[in-house]
Amino acid sequence: MSQTQAKLTQNPLEKTWVPWMQRLSRRRGSSVPQFTNSPTMIVMVGLPARGKTYISKKLTRYLNWIGVTTKVFNVGQYRREATSSYNSYEFFSPDNAEAMNIRKACVVTALQDVSDYFTMKQGQVVVFDATNTTPERREVILNFTKENGYKAFFVESICDDPSVIDENIKQVKLTSPDYEGCDKEEALADFLKRIECYKQTYVPLDDDKDRNLSYIKIFNVGSRYLVNRVQDHIQSRIVYYLMNIHVAPRSIYLCRHGESELNIAGRIGGDSGLSNRGAEFARALGSYMREQRISDLKVWTSHMKRTIQTAEFLGVQYEQWKALNEIDAGVCEEMTYEEIQENFPEEFALRDQDKYRYRYPKGESYEDLVQRLEPVIMELERQENVLVICHQAVMRCLLAYFLDKSDGELPYLKCPLHTALKLTPVAYGCKVESIFLKVEAVNTHRDRPENVDVDRDPAEALETVPDHV
Amino acid sequence: MSQTQAKLTQNPLEKTWVPWMQRLSRRRGSSVPQFTNSPTMIVMVGLPARGKTYISKKLTRYLNWIGVTTKVFNVGQYRREATSSYNSYEFFSPDNAEAMNIRKACVVTALQDVSDYFTMKQGQVVVFDATNTTPERREVILNFTKENGYKAFFVESICDDPSVIDENIKQVKLTSPDYEGCDKEEALADFLKRIECYKQTYVPLDDDKDRNLSYIKIFNVGSRYLVNRVQDHIQSRIVYYLMNIHVAPRSIYLCRHGESELNIAGRIGGDSGLSNRGAEFARALGSYMREQRISDLKVWTSHMKRTIQTAEFLGVQYEQWKALNEIDAGVCEEMTYEEIQENFPEEFALRDQDKYRYRYPKGESYEDLVQRLEPVIMELERQENVLVICHQAVMRCLLAYFLDKSDGELPYLKCPLHTALKLTPVAYGCKVESIFLKVEAVNTHRDRPENVDVDRDPAEALETVPDHV
Repeated sequence: MSQTQAKLTQNPLEKTWVPWMQRLSRRRGSSVPQFTNSPTMIVMVGLPARGKTYISKKLTRYLNWIGVTTKVFNVGQYRREATSSYNSYEFFSPDNAEAMNIRKACVVTALQDVSDYFTMKQGQVVVFDATNTTPERREVILNFTKENGYKAFFVESICDDPSVIDENIKQVKLTSPDYEGCDKEEALADFLKRIECYKQTYVPLDDDKDRNLSYIKIFNVGSRYLVNRVQDHIQSRIVYYLMNIHVAPRSIYLCRHGESELNIAGRIGGDSGLSNRGAEFARALGSYMREQRISDLKVWTSHMKRTIQTAEFLGVQYEQWKALNEIDAGVCEEMTYEEIQENFPEEFALRDQDKYRYRYPKGESYEDLVQRLEPVIMELERQENVLVICHQAVMRCLLAYFLDKSDGELPYLKCPLHTALKLTPVAYGCKVESIFLKVEAVNTHRDRPENVDVDRDPAEALETVPDHV
Repeated sequence: MSQTQAKLTQNPLEKTWVPWMQRLSRRRGSSVPQFTNSPTMIVMVGLPARGKTYISKKLTRYLNWIGVTTKVFNVGQYRREATSSYNSYEFFSPDNAEAMNIRKACVVTALQDVSDYFTMKQGQVVVFDATNTTPERREVILNFTKENGYKAFFVESICDDPSVIDENIKQVKLTSPDYEGCDKEEALADFLKRIECYKQTYVPLDDDKDRNLSYIKIFNVGSRYLVNRVQDHIQSRIVYYLMNIHVAPRSIYLCRHGESELNIAGRIGGDSGLSNRGAEFARALGSYMREQRISDLKVWTSHMKRTIQTAEFLGVQYEQWKALNEIDAGVCEEMTYEEIQENFPEEFALRDQDKYRYRYPKGESYEDLVQRLEPVIMELERQENVLVICHQAVMRCLLAYFLDKSDGELPYLKCPLHTALKLTPVAYGCKVESIFLKVEAVNTHRDRPENVDVDRDPAEALETVPDHV
């Protein structure tokens, strides 16, 4: 082997080392661990109103956020598109041959779209959201995965607690397009009959007959799990995630530290203390949180002075997470944007070209930050009421997870100083309340400028820099 | 609240921010997330030769490594200490009243020691390694945890595959002190009868009767898991870990990059390329790995140039992990030890005082590194044959996990350049083979000097610095 093969060049955007011959030949090194070598189909199983769509959407949001390209395929939507309008539960009767044909055709169409997603859209994981309550239907899907070389992982939700099922129906089913303009009581009665139709043919995954399949059974919203034949890293992560989420009502409060000395100077990063207004915000935050009257509130900060100072004003216990530290700007730490443009104009432009993937020299990218924050998100899922006092880039990453924002949107999410966000889970998403605590602060948000070329004029590069002293 | 309360000082060792009044008053902030607020007792359940001791030791090693103070209490050892010598399986017969009294007394003594460990030795988790196969015995333990305010988590290993059980007996039981000097065949026969004794009274955890307990049941060495009522973060982590370990034979190869330009200059950190000898090592490593003839070998590197260059010489696919990057020496990056002593003598001394916890200004500690490497260890547990090409501090952390080294020993483990370690799991531990690939390299190991005082002479501080140009 010739020594020239070990010559490496650095990718200017992500700062990763790549063999200089790479563009000409094969790529041997992958810059992130490859966890999903073959496409994976997550197949939901369960009666209606068992939280399948909730799990599907939530899991998909998580996987996309950690960087695994994932999409939900909801067979109910295919059915709604295939039939002119919904009449009644009788459509779901096992004896309704005509409807059964429509339903089978929907599955075929959906599976075709799954295959397109994997082959044409770089999809890595699909969540196939349907009841899949019969062994025959699961056999069809399993054959489809085998023929295409996909891995299959079943997620069955089993619930026999009527109060949970009723709550689920009220929360999400009565507002379904199937019941648009329909009386609530009638809709509820119809939906319960629909469930009965499915019960006639429902066969849960079988401990013995299905022992060679990979699956997780979730009993009564997570009081128990049966996990069978986990095949790989991604399935293991999915199991861990599903075992950590819960549906207890709670709120997560996200905010940044109070305005810091370096914020005022328009400098990024560093580890400065609070300005007078920053301290004032911290006191206001304390009053606001006390008004919320949450007895079991947890408070998390980063390891940085400005978040810990903010927490100290609250007068309650708090925990410091190094993982919550602000993005490391490497050689640009403590610089103003003007200084970055002056000293590293190319870096500045590259960051504007792909802010999510751009890595500061000797520092981090937003993509790095998401990986670092994954254990924080996992623990946030486990916990109930939490106030997270963090930083601009960190808050954007956390917010993107909860609000299902794309990589492109994430680094531009607006997270102003002195404004707390209260996130409360509702139905399939999150209600967001923005609470400005009435203490002025500098603006630290810089939008993407129009010109992102490396040879742009400095004025163009600095066009969107917020005012500072 | 007065503003002075938000005045913070920085801990010189760990660089964490703490309120200046802290020594006088209560501590509100904890510098790491508090995952174990009450002591947890992991209670093993299962017939003999079901891998309970294997799981106990491995789990304990993992928990200690991630920073959760954990100890195994093996009731069999108490029994061996209480009885003069082992005669035969008849000791374990449910009808042997005298022996039964001894065994009960052993449990009582062990539980007393558990309680001492929690109250007097800052223990956070105990693994109670015994068969605990009867509901009565489990009730005793459960009452003990309730009375003391501990959490209990049961880990039951169920196996009905005779080949697995036979293999387990041969691997670890025949070498037990119980069978010292005993004929192998006789010992095997006796042990099988001992299992039969336990079977007479064994009642597995019951899906219904024990539904309020927190437990995991592991079926046939991980082909299936039943997980019930996980209560908190640490139990969730334990479940995830147990679901990722396996017992398939394999080897893990650990080595550092080839000697780098900065190694030769005696400078730490940085991102330099290989020296000529470093490249020579990389080629030698390639030959050695080819001789090992491992068809499914995975190769992992860090994001740093010197590990990627080393991997390129192997001519195989590899994956880059940012988590494998060398410890970030912050302001000391690319300095020689002499320069660190010159510029930051106090930092240099503090590091010698507690090398595991010491955090470089704007950099990392070994403790940080362990947290960053946890996902790497988890994936190493999942994988089979892997070659990890990493860095001195990183390799020390990985090695400490596999060889169960303490925080104190970890930062001083010897991981010389150009020497690969082959780790092969055997019985309860790891066989280590050290392979020097016969390419000279500089020594980069600096032992703890005798004088670690902040006001020591420079010569004393530099006494153990290895030679360099």
